[in-house]
Amino acid sequence: MKKDHAALRPPMGWNSWDCYGPAVNEEQLLGNAEYMAKYLKQYGWEYIVCDIQWSEPNAGKVASGREVPFYMPFAQLEMDEYGRQFPAPERFPSAAGGKGFAPIAEKIHDMGLKFGIHIMRGVPRQAVHQHLPVKGTGTTCDKIASSTSICWWNADMYGINADLEGAQAYYDSIFELYASWGVDFIKVDDICNTSAYPDNPYSAEKEIEMIRRAIDQCGREMVLSLSPGPAVIEKSWHLRQNANMWRLTDDFWDRWDLLLAMFERCEVWERQVSPGNWPDCDMLPLGSLRLYLNDWKDAAGLEFDTTWTNFTKEEQYTMMSLWSIFRSPLIMGGEMRNNDDFTLSLLTNAEILRMQRFGTNAHQVYRTEKACVWKSTDQEDGSVYAALFNLSDSAAQVTACFEELEIAGTYQVRDLWAKEDKGTETEKLSAWIAPHGAVVYRLKK
Amino acid sequence: MKKDHAALRPPMGWNSWDCYGPAVNEEQLLGNAEYMAKYLKQYGWEYIVCDIQWSEPNAGKVASGREVPFYMPFAQLEMDEYGRQFPAPERFPSAAGGKGFAPIAEKIHDMGLKFGIHIMRGVPRQAVHQHLPVKGTGTTCDKIASSTSICWWNADMYGINADLEGAQAYYDSIFELYASWGVDFIKVDDICNTSAYPDNPYSAEKEIEMIRRAIDQCGREMVLSLSPGPAVIEKSWHLRQNANMWRLTDDFWDRWDLLLAMFERCEVWERQVSPGNWPDCDMLPLGSLRLYLNDWKDAAGLEFDTTWTNFTKEEQYTMMSLWSIFRSPLIMGGEMRNNDDFTLSLLTNAEILRMQRFGTNAHQVYRTEKACVWKSTDQEDGSVYAALFNLSDSAAQVTACFEELEIAGTYQVRDLWAKEDKGTETEKLSAWIAPHGAVVYRLKK
Amino acid sequence: MKKDHAALRPPMGWNSWDCYGPAVNEEQLLGNAEYMAKYLKQYGWEYIVCDIQWSEPNAGKVASGREVPFYMPFAQLEMDEYGRQFPAPERFPSAAGGKGFAPIAEKIHDMGLKFGIHIMRGVPRQAVHQHLPVKGTGTTCDKIASSTSICWWNADMYGINADLEGAQAYYDSIFELYASWGVDFIKVDDICNTSAYPDNPYSAEKEIEMIRRAIDQCGREMVLSLSPGPAVIEKSWHLRQNANMWRLTDDFWDRWDLLLAMFERCEVWERQVSPGNWPDCDMLPLGSLRLYLNDWKDAAGLEFDTTWTNFTKEEQYTMMSLWSIFRSPLIMGGEMRNNDDFTLSLLTNAEILRMQRFGTNAHQVYRTEKACVWKSTDQEDGSVYAALFNLSDSAAQVTACFEELEIAGTYQVRDLWAKEDKGTETEKLSAWIAPHGAVVYRLKK
Amino acid sequence: MKKDHAALRPPMGWNSWDCYGPAVNEEQLLGNAEYMAKYLKQYGWEYIVCDIQWSEPNAGKVASGREVPFYMPFAQLEMDEYGRQFPAPERFPSAAGGKGFAPIAEKIHDMGLKFGIHIMRGVPRQAVHQHLPVKGTGTTCDKIASSTSICWWNADMYGINADLEGAQAYYDSIFELYASWGVDFIKVDDICNTSAYPDNPYSAEKEIEMIRRAIDQCGREMVLSLSPGPAVIEKSWHLRQNANMWRLTDDFWDRWDLLLAMFERCEVWERQVSPGNWPDCDMLPLGSLRLYLNDWKDAAGLEFDTTWTNFTKEEQYTMMSLWSIFRSPLIMGGEMRNNDDFTLSLLTNAEILRMQRFGTNAHQVYRTEKACVWKSTDQEDGSVYAALFNLSDSAAQVTACFEELEIAGTYQVRDLWAKEDKGTETEKLSAWIAPHGAVVYRLKK
Repeated sequence: MKKDHAALRPPMGWNSWDCYGPAVNEEQLLGNAEYMAKYLKQYGWEYIVCDIQWSEPNAGKVASGREVPFYMPFAQLEMDEYGRQFPAPERFPSAAGGKGFAPIAEKIHDMGLKFGIHIMRGVPRQAVHQHLPVKGTGTTCDKIASSTSICWWNADMYGINADLEGAQAYYDSIFELYASWGVDFIKVDDICNTSAYPDNPYSAEKEIEMIRRAIDQCGREMVLSLSPGPAVIEKSWHLRQNANMWRLTDDFWDRWDLLLAMFERCEVWERQVSPGNWPDCDMLPLGSLRLYLNDWKDAAGLEFDTTWTNFTKEEQYTMMSLWSIFRSPLIMGGEMRNNDDFTLSLLTNAEILRMQRFGTNAHQVYRTEKACVWKSTDQEDGSVYAALFNLSDSAAQVTACFEELEIAGTYQVRDLWAKEDKGTETEKLSAWIAPHGAVVYRLKK
Repeated sequence: MKKDHAALRPPMGWNSWDCYGPAVNEEQLLGNAEYMAKYLKQYGWEYIVCDIQWSEPNAGKVASGREVPFYMPFAQLEMDEYGRQFPAPERFPSAAGGKGFAPIAEKIHDMGLKFGIHIMRGVPRQAVHQHLPVKGTGTTCDKIASSTSICWWNADMYGINADLEGAQAYYDSIFELYASWGVDFIKVDDICNTSAYPDNPYSAEKEIEMIRRAIDQCGREMVLSLSPGPAVIEKSWHLRQNANMWRLTDDFWDRWDLLLAMFERCEVWERQVSPGNWPDCDMLPLGSLRLYLNDWKDAAGLEFDTTWTNFTKEEQYTMMSLWSIFRSPLIMGGEMRNNDDFTLSLLTNAEILRMQRFGTNAHQVYRTEKACVWKSTDQEDGSVYAALFNLSDSAAQVTACFEELEIAGTYQVRDLWAKEDKGTETEKLSAWIAPHGAVVYRLKK
Repeated sequence: MKKDHAALRPPMGWNSWDCYGPAVNEEQLLGNAEYMAKYLKQYGWEYIVCDIQWSEPNAGKVASGREVPFYMPFAQLEMDEYGRQFPAPERFPSAAGGKGFAPIAEKIHDMGLKFGIHIMRGVPRQAVHQHLPVKGTGTTCDKIASSTSICWWNADMYGINADLEGAQAYYDSIFELYASWGVDFIKVDDICNTSAYPDNPYSAEKEIEMIRRAIDQCGREMVLSLSPGPAVIEKSWHLRQNANMWRLTDDFWDRWDLLLAMFERCEVWERQVSPGNWPDCDMLPLGSLRLYLNDWKDAAGLEFDTTWTNFTKEEQYTMMSLWSIFRSPLIMGGEMRNNDDFTLSLLTNAEILRMQRFGTNAHQVYRTEKACVWKSTDQEDGSVYAALFNLSDSAAQVTACFEELEIAGTYQVRDLWAKEDKGTETEKLSAWIAPHGAVVYRLKK
Repeated sequence: MKKDHAALRPPMGWNSWDCYGPAVNEEQLLGNAEYMAKYLKQYGWEYIVCDIQWSEPNAGKVASGREVPFYMPFAQLEMDEYGRQFPAPERFPSAAGGKGFAPIAEKIHDMGLKFGIHIMRGVPRQAVHQHLPVKGTGTTCDKIASSTSICWWNADMYGINADLEGAQAYYDSIFELYASWGVDFIKVDDICNTSAYPDNPYSAEKEIEMIRRAIDQCGREMVLSLSPGPAVIEKSWHLRQNANMWRLTDDFWDRWDLLLAMFERCEVWERQVSPGNWPDCDMLPLGSLRLYLNDWKDAAGLEFDTTWTNFTKEEQYTMMSLWSIFRSPLIMGGEMRNNDDFTLSLLTNAEILRMQRFGTNAHQVYRTEKACVWKSTDQEDGSVYAALFNLSDSAAQVTACFEELEIAGTYQVRDLWAKEDKGTETEKLSAWIAPHGAVVYRLKK
């Protein structure tokens, strides 16, 4: 299927949200791109993704007293005469003169990387209330908007009613623009958790389908990533028909309870993973995060107050191990230029990353309240990957016998994080693991 | 309590919705006012109320393909520079030149009647997206709007976030305007069924409180009527603190199942009725209704296709009897100039209307699937009202014994609809009643 | 109405649950009766009520590992040949020889008091599975039971299906027995919160009606008290038709959050209070409570671990004041023989109790997050009661102006808890009140 | 995995429910076994399953006035001294003398077939209330039962609380018995739709795990089939760990709307199908059904009143095609001795049945409101199966292009129901199909 070609292996990249929130700028995008080109590209990392609100000149000013302090409702967005958003030149100087993201994309492409952007589903309310024309049609934006299809946490858009004439044309018009800029990856937001639309659970589905069609005819291959989660497993077939990635949870951050909950989500979704279809555990909150806190010292209602990851090293191993054996996309969230050696080491362990790229038939072997074991098989050489997780708050022995792993015989065992060969095993795998930690073994006959 | 003074007895009047939907005009308002002055005023009828969308020049054009065909979303509303809606001169010619409803109100007052208008809670989205100033403040409409507080069936407004500076000032500004026009009755919509706001059930409550304060300081007494229902009985205390009428159900129309369901609602609310506090069974769909259907012949999704009430005469007696003994407001919904003799007779039965105005301690005596009996007591002369309802689909005997009515002794009985004295009773009341019909007795010692 | 005669004023008494749980015995019942006769009877206290599981010989043994540790499921209950429960002679020696509660009732009557018992709705599962006959019929208990109508927290009973022949006869048979014992008050459990029966919300209603009919024809007047709450306000009419008391909440205990929540419940129910109809705030957890904890030291899952009330003195004033002005039944929960002087003083303040017995039209004047004011009027002399509550965690001034109280003129003010005359007031009432405390004033012209 | 070995291909068999309800007897079981051995065995059919209530001597007497008329609550079940149910000799004469199902199983084995039985999860209420011992333990049935874990539609059992001592021992004791009888297939009821236990959603999961353990240690391989549905997709991992079949819907009957709804369920579950794990579309209501209606002419509340399938021939093709390409178990529901030629032909189409047994990677290609296409691939020869369904109420062309089928080149096409070669295709498959009908093609290079 053509859609699948855009992501035959799980995408790897960087996204601006975890470090810059709604306020990333051109220098930050390009600086992280340069870092990636220099340190990470050779390991498979390739996407640089600009997250939400790039059309808002003043994005990142906290809206005090508002339900959602992150966004200033009813702000004036940068738009063209067809109600299509453009990057705000105040933040992205190269976009001046109507060039949009084309100059940034070109620079990133020149580094051998790919470029992605975030959009909210729908059409800007601003375009609707101004009755702007939909490009290439005789209709206007107010004629295609659904007045009740709104986002609970961001006031920029109205959803588009697929039953109205001109609906598809609007989506076609924006993807035509994105293709002209050279966009390779599109993260569409407020669309994935279709149970969020109790009045009309199908509205988001139809918007997903319109976006799929718009990509298919825009003339450029793009990875389609849907947010936020939790995606609904009953809709898996629909997601696999239309998208390449979809989020399994609401925003993931550096809290152990959220990481623990991901084990249950991976269990539910393990059989939905296949080329072109990558259930998404969300960005990796590693290293240098939430740099906007430096400006928002007085903002109320913010859950985290640190600008470095709260995860212990053991928890970071666990996250990287689970994401990689499950084959989630790997999207680094921290400001990479601030990486310390440990953080960089997590992103450049070639043996772990090979498991993410070449593992197959990944599945949970067992899970209790205290431990969890996953297994997958290397597509190329048939070696077996086994990840052992200590979910408890104390150091503990975690074991998987060969019968559970459905293997038999003598295997050479290698510890992929320690990068050590461990000799041979014939009956079971076992490790004494620190609290919240993980060990990943590769087994060869 | 000051609030209660505006409606010491349950209001009686006429409202444009049932016959003209969102499209009533000046001629129709004044024509019905003249009719009321001539034929009904002497029976206590006094309010002429202009329902929804009087600021929309093209209101009543059906929006095909839309979720709610009645309203054209994102239409341009008539507004002043402070985001306050004005009647559209295209439909209300006397409003030209910024006079608003003042000329119409004056004519109605000159007839010895009172004038009411409908509003939606909140601030026009149009004013928000234009960032119009809030009168008398340094803030703008976008700074007080709640971007997610919208109405499911009409796209005109955003709710107002009471926690933001300027919120009360906006409500004050519109009630100052309405007072200057001479408004006596205000029907606020999208505000009564507070369970309709699952994300923030208190938002509507706080808007009710802002409206109460705005009325209290506007310098003019106004009846405050809240729609739509169903009102939530748990919120009865709050409603009684703030409003004069509140709807017990969603829109009431001329269907027997809806009338039957009202018996259960009245049972629930019977103890909340008191001077200034009138749980509202909604308009009376009598006579000539839905005249807009003459223009909308092809509109899809409309539930009714007749322009005369579907209620049988018996059902009309039942409705008038229940509304009157329960002491609901009586708001005629039909185009009164088209009344036939029977319809007019329902509105001019002085003995029934006295029960609505002077009954007290009204309560259900019993209700089964087949019959229902209500009782109240005349405040002035102590006579007893008993309404007997046949809820079944066949003619039947309905009986109430004196013990159930908590009376004893010999009573003279008068049938108020038949206007006949029925002799004396000492043990019980009884009547053979047509299907869906009612008999109302007044008993005197 | 005949039903109302059983409780023309809100009942006052004592119940064994708060101090003895499911394990009260004859000595404890009679000991508290003697105490009441000696110290409380002259203030209006009269009912001695034996709570749950009096037919279980071993009641009060904690069931470890069970969902509800209080009850031993499938225990053998004392029953007669018709499946009617009898008090277990092991705990109530005077019941031996089939005398049931008659000897205890007689002793209590001889003290000038009244006697009440608790029952679960339905028929014992034990009687059902033994196919015992229903007295006076040709049918058996298994033919009237509803196999799916069970209680979530006690395994003794099946609900009775009112549509089956013999259903009413079973209830008649038990109330005939209770009348023969001399029971004056019946607390029926697992029946009040009808929303607890999602599969058939009407089953509990029909059982309430069967119980009403059984009482009406048993030949003895009994107060009917329904548990547990929360009662559903939409069912108020049905409750008023059938019962004398109904619980507003789930079990009430000595925790401030529960007491605070009662203010909201009283607001909702204030208009449902009338002679014979007493919305019930539940027992008063005062003084010596949970004496079973002395035996159950190791029981898991118990919420409280103290055998004296956790309420501060101020909170005790608040509870007594709210219950009394709202006119809740007053049912002492503590072991009265352990009362200290303060506890006894709460139960013997004649002026406060007069408010409970003679107040009328009680209603909340206002409530904020920090304070609340209630008002009622003495039926006999027209004096005004005003209760001022400080709901905050700091000492604070609480005020009610005369306009809010809907009074005018000069009033002599008396503080009912302090038993002090406070001079006259002409404009407002005000008091500096300790955290969680209350002041009650009586005002006379 | 050992569990999977019991059903490496989707089971095929017959079950007594659709034709005999709760009242099947020995003659009927053996008669259908003989039919299967003679006409169907060579096509792969092998299981004869006795459905619900085989321990109830009078099963099938309708319980008038009851919520569920099919079952007589509190009936006396045939049990041994350990609370283990035995077949009632009144209906299964060979079971007399405590032989249980062993004689019937032996006869069925002698025919070259396998034998299955239905059980309800839990322990008989009758055993609980009699406090019978749990075999091999010092505890009794009342000590392991969960008093609130009941079935909504059958009153025989209490669920077993896995946390109580003796819980596993009871399940072990019954599977030891079933193994001694020679049972090969166990259908456990009231256990699959774990969302049916809102108070404790894990209770059913833990019972599933106890049953799994009991089978694993009983010494005999048994297929484990769980009912009723709908199974919850979030629990797929747990189901795959423990069972071989689980129901996708509530009881399936011969109604088009139910058949149509199965397409959506198959879409949701398509990726959960693998050896040993067979999401189950339920029995095939074909031919002679509901023979109990001959006795129950007056029973109220029965949904169907015919004793022959209501499905059209086209619908029967559709059902057989969907079940077979999805790889649902195939369990005939009708009395096979009454089969007509057409019914028999559906069960003996070797080419269709090969698709069910050798298809792999079955998945929906697309589905609209009017049509649906599925594809799978033969494990052995790589030929492609494509099923085209006309879901509309009119005859229509249904098409699948090769790109959608992800195939390319020239294929020889055979129509498996018509048993006709259709020549070659290079671009698409297409068929003109009667309303609700299906065509199945096999494509070879």
